[in-house]
Amino acid sequence: MSGTAGQVIRCKAAVAWEAGKPLVMEEVDVAPPQAMEVRVKILFTSLCHTDVYFWEAKGQTPLFPRIFGHEAGGIVESVGEGVTDLEPGDHVLPVFTGECKECRHCKSEESNMCDLLRINTDRGVMLNDGKSRFSIRGQPIYHFVGTSTFSEYTVVHVGCLAKINPAAPLDKVCVLSCGISTGLGATLNVAKPKKGSSVAIFGLGAVGLAAAEGARISGASRIIGVDLNANRFDEAKKFGVTEFVNPKDHDKPVHEVIAEMTNGGVDRSVECTGSVSAMISAFECVHDGWGVAVLVGVPNKDDAFKTHPMNVLNERTLKGTFFGNYKPRSDIPSVVEKYMNKELELEKFITHEVPFAEINKAFEYMLSGAGLRCIIKMDA
Amino acid sequence: MSGTAGQVIRCKAAVAWEAGKPLVMEEVDVAPPQAMEVRVKILFTSLCHTDVYFWEAKGQTPLFPRIFGHEAGGIVESVGEGVTDLEPGDHVLPVFTGECKECRHCKSEESNMCDLLRINTDRGVMLNDGKSRFSIRGQPIYHFVGTSTFSEYTVVHVGCLAKINPAAPLDKVCVLSCGISTGLGATLNVAKPKKGSSVAIFGLGAVGLAAAEGARISGASRIIGVDLNANRFDEAKKFGVTEFVNPKDHDKPVHEVIAEMTNGGVDRSVECTGSVSAMISAFECVHDGWGVAVLVGVPNKDDAFKTHPMNVLNERTLKGTFFGNYKPRSDIPSVVEKYMNKELELEKFITHEVPFAEINKAFEYMLSGAGLRCIIKMDA
Repeated sequence: MSGTAGQVIRCKAAVAWEAGKPLVMEEVDVAPPQAMEVRVKILFTSLCHTDVYFWEAKGQTPLFPRIFGHEAGGIVESVGEGVTDLEPGDHVLPVFTGECKECRHCKSEESNMCDLLRINTDRGVMLNDGKSRFSIRGQPIYHFVGTSTFSEYTVVHVGCLAKINPAAPLDKVCVLSCGISTGLGATLNVAKPKKGSSVAIFGLGAVGLAAAEGARISGASRIIGVDLNANRFDEAKKFGVTEFVNPKDHDKPVHEVIAEMTNGGVDRSVECTGSVSAMISAFECVHDGWGVAVLVGVPNKDDAFKTHPMNVLNERTLKGTFFGNYKPRSDIPSVVEKYMNKELELEKFITHEVPFAEINKAFEYMLSGAGLRCIIKMDA
Repeated sequence: MSGTAGQVIRCKAAVAWEAGKPLVMEEVDVAPPQAMEVRVKILFTSLCHTDVYFWEAKGQTPLFPRIFGHEAGGIVESVGEGVTDLEPGDHVLPVFTGECKECRHCKSEESNMCDLLRINTDRGVMLNDGKSRFSIRGQPIYHFVGTSTFSEYTVVHVGCLAKINPAAPLDKVCVLSCGISTGLGATLNVAKPKKGSSVAIFGLGAVGLAAAEGARISGASRIIGVDLNANRFDEAKKFGVTEFVNPKDHDKPVHEVIAEMTNGGVDRSVECTGSVSAMISAFECVHDGWGVAVLVGVPNKDDAFKTHPMNVLNERTLKGTFFGNYKPRSDIPSVVEKYMNKELELEKFITHEVPFAEINKAFEYMLSGAGLRCIIKMDA
């Protein structure tokens, strides 16, 4: 155990005091981990759309003050009672959804939607006592999805930490905490394209490009990128995208355009926008007989997925995925190994870097649509 | 070759002269098979809803006079040019959809929707010359789905004939030509329930009970039958159905009833009614994380399958199937073997038998909802 174990740690954190207002760098007190909790020193974190979405808090019940952040890499500082899988010094990736290893989902080979630790965006406290581990002069600051990585130290449930190869560079593999694994796993674990097959990717943001990276790794021979933003097409080539469709360039529905390009439809599609019309197109553009469409993007509350049932009957498959069907503790370490053995390329996702003090710049990059991932270096 | 090879055969056939009118027993001329065609002596045929649907011809462009019938067993009488897989004396099941073994679908492991020989309910002629092989005093009589088994002799494309074990009793295995294989394959090939799992079957007609039979063979521990007709429940027990839900008995949606019975949803569901609301319920009643819903029933033209995309995102799978994903020539012989080795029970599907002369009784049984399958004996 380190010298700080069992003590409150005072450190820097970027606090969101109000919805949509720039984060403020504060000195926060981080309480020691309780039962089944782990305190982690964060070295690198990155910014994901989900942080921005809950920071903007439009149409939500806002929960502030709060410490956002959920894509990160760090080192275990100390562990709470009952934690046997991790010890101080272990390299970890915090994950916004967990794996208790006890529930029906964790015991199922097919699911990663843990009953105990499934993502909860409304809860700002720890499960153990319903309280926050963060405070400023005694005022509690809420957690975010159990990770709150915009802090030099954070407290995370052991079930939300993937123990990874200590040789892996945390400034690169930190992006595997969320978006990149989500897209990659959607293709590798769910769509499962065969070598030589065709894959359509809807949405060429970081998640969609990670899905394309999965198609490239699978040996797909045609990877068709679909996006309303033509500026994304050049960047996408680096990720193996071979052809582009901008729905704005066509008078007919995009699923018809794709069917014409591919003699009846693609073998697989992955939808990464969250737009319900893109979801429907992604389903209807796969080939009858064998096509599989995978939905990744999160829809609006009132959306309806609607299609003629014959599109299903003609032997198409529609699947949804959450975090790329990866179980955080069991599977993410092997995704890190894919990077280590150069099968998976992560550098191309990292377009910006800022020191922690300039974290608001990362928000600006994302809001302006510049680049893919911005790494925030905690010690700089 | 038999003595009749190359000759027109005059034999008895039950001809539908007009939509919805009783079939009339006629002497028809059956021309010899042309290239890639086979003439088959039908020994037993049974009646399926699809025959009745196209015989009623409601809302369709009617095609009459026509010889219906597509569930049957027979013996090859003679073969046309180019037919190498079959010879006179072979025992065969005609199938309403074919397998050319050349197209992308036939070459795909995942599809059975042959480009050349996929079911076509509007075509009443043979592919080779666009003409019928049946005539009465020179007047052509249309074929039905390439099989037309309500005739002592019929001509079928070689790709629509499954060559089966000659020891198999044709009066039993003839029901594997369509409905029973469709339901059985939906479960065994597509839903694939694990031993000990829970399966909901929507619709307890012959196809649904065959899906239940598939669940029983798979070792499912709970098989929940859903039907609006309470009279079907007793019969269904023979097929392994363990519990019953009649949507009429509940104030809440059936997917909620099933979720309550099963702690969140069934592992698999199979929809065999064709009602779009049942399709939606079948999808929404499967468990998140791992549930798979399989659609079998054929919908109406204007139906829309509609669900909230989060139901998909939460790792549910929706699949459609056609003829239980069986490739007629490659796979049906092995289904016959399942019956031969007593894994699959067919006797319980056969509730009636009539001589060919009384074929209209089979229509009456089906229209009144009595029983499951009526075997029509051609030589009686």
